[in-house]
Amino acid sequence: MSEGVIENRLKQLGIVLPEASEPAAKYANFVIVNGLLFVSGKGPAGKPKGKLGKDFTTEEGYQFARQAGIEVLAVLQSALGTLDKVRRVVKVQGFVNANPAFEEPHKVLNGFSDLMLEVFGDDKGFHARSVLGASSLRDNLPVVVDSIFQVEE
Amino acid sequence: MSEGVIENRLKQLGIVLPEASEPAAKYANFVIVNGLLFVSGKGPAGKPKGKLGKDFTTEEGYQFARQAGIEVLAVLQSALGTLDKVRRVVKVQGFVNANPAFEEPHKVLNGFSDLMLEVFGDDKGFHARSVLGASSLRDNLPVVVDSIFQVEE
Amino acid sequence: MSEGVIENRLKQLGIVLPEASEPAAKYANFVIVNGLLFVSGKGPAGKPKGKLGKDFTTEEGYQFARQAGIEVLAVLQSALGTLDKVRRVVKVQGFVNANPAFEEPHKVLNGFSDLMLEVFGDDKGFHARSVLGASSLRDNLPVVVDSIFQVEE
Repeated sequence: MSEGVIENRLKQLGIVLPEASEPAAKYANFVIVNGLLFVSGKGPAGKPKGKLGKDFTTEEGYQFARQAGIEVLAVLQSALGTLDKVRRVVKVQGFVNANPAFEEPHKVLNGFSDLMLEVFGDDKGFHARSVLGASSLRDNLPVVVDSIFQVEE
Repeated sequence: MSEGVIENRLKQLGIVLPEASEPAAKYANFVIVNGLLFVSGKGPAGKPKGKLGKDFTTEEGYQFARQAGIEVLAVLQSALGTLDKVRRVVKVQGFVNANPAFEEPHKVLNGFSDLMLEVFGDDKGFHARSVLGASSLRDNLPVVVDSIFQVEE
Repeated sequence: MSEGVIENRLKQLGIVLPEASEPAAKYANFVIVNGLLFVSGKGPAGKPKGKLGKDFTTEEGYQFARQAGIEVLAVLQSALGTLDKVRRVVKVQGFVNANPAFEEPHKVLNGFSDLMLEVFGDDKGFHARSVLGASSLRDNLPVVVDSIFQVEE
């Protein structure tokens, strides 16, 4: 494993990346085209189950979104060999498993966004995003994050 | 501010662009990569609250989607200096805050699509899109629109 | 019509592509930019109505997602003249009309993913994807699929 700038930052943050998790069916964890790396939707490890606004608080959702971010970083590591090849976090979409009265999906997704800023810094980590409350998600996961990165090939 | 072709069209349409609204958290209003400008999800100004099929009619939703479009134009203006640098509206995703019985999210998103066609004309304004009814949205907004534009850099 | 490799595979699979269906409003079926073809959200032909976890089983949803895939192939055929110009299925997003207790949107979307693998093979067909349960969809369709392809221009 390369010991690059970003790997050192992960150590400082106390983050140990797991192996990239397997896709939930026969599809790819990622596709790279035109220097853009599209990562498949990832949820938190350990498969927690439940909805925001019902089973989990916004703060718990924030932590789940951060954990989803770690799963995405693991995919990037497996795809690129080193996270130093990430040039920019481009676009993030957050799907929050939420009951109809839940108004804070953006505060949940902040767990993912803040992790990206901590790991990649403001220049590379600052990204466009959108978020919505979903009626349901696979395996009743609390949050799934879909993301696009600009990378060196 | 440049007084270009599109700015003149806005005047004819009676549209005065506001300042670009701040993101709802620490993320970017937009990211440009490979000539594609990714705009973060934007809702209507004034933060109306409520769901389609419950609190708002489809026609009200249409107007909210149009207002979200004006917020997106304001981001483009801030990003590019002039809307003349927009080469194409590429892709639009509409998230409509909807109760489960609401079957017209596409008619809501038409408010956004029609605005793009009015402002950019059929050649540049015609775009791919998709739309869904969300269980909930941030701050109980009625609609949020996620969009991608091809631009001159 | 070109009789290419992929057209022959469609014949072997017993798939006859229909004409590309009309968009549900004034927007484009597709946009091509930078060699990426963005297809507008497509549902199954025949406009079935209902929700997963309520009106339809997961297996029925799988078939609907497969049918949505055929509609997408029809758009590609109309856009490119021949499906041989598809270089890669890049990214798929599935929106499944689902009640809050439905936990298998990914198994529904497999109907789309499996079709792409059958038609384009593992090299070109393997794609990134994400999926969510929507509160509602246009015309109460059971599933809508949004997709991006890399193509020869």
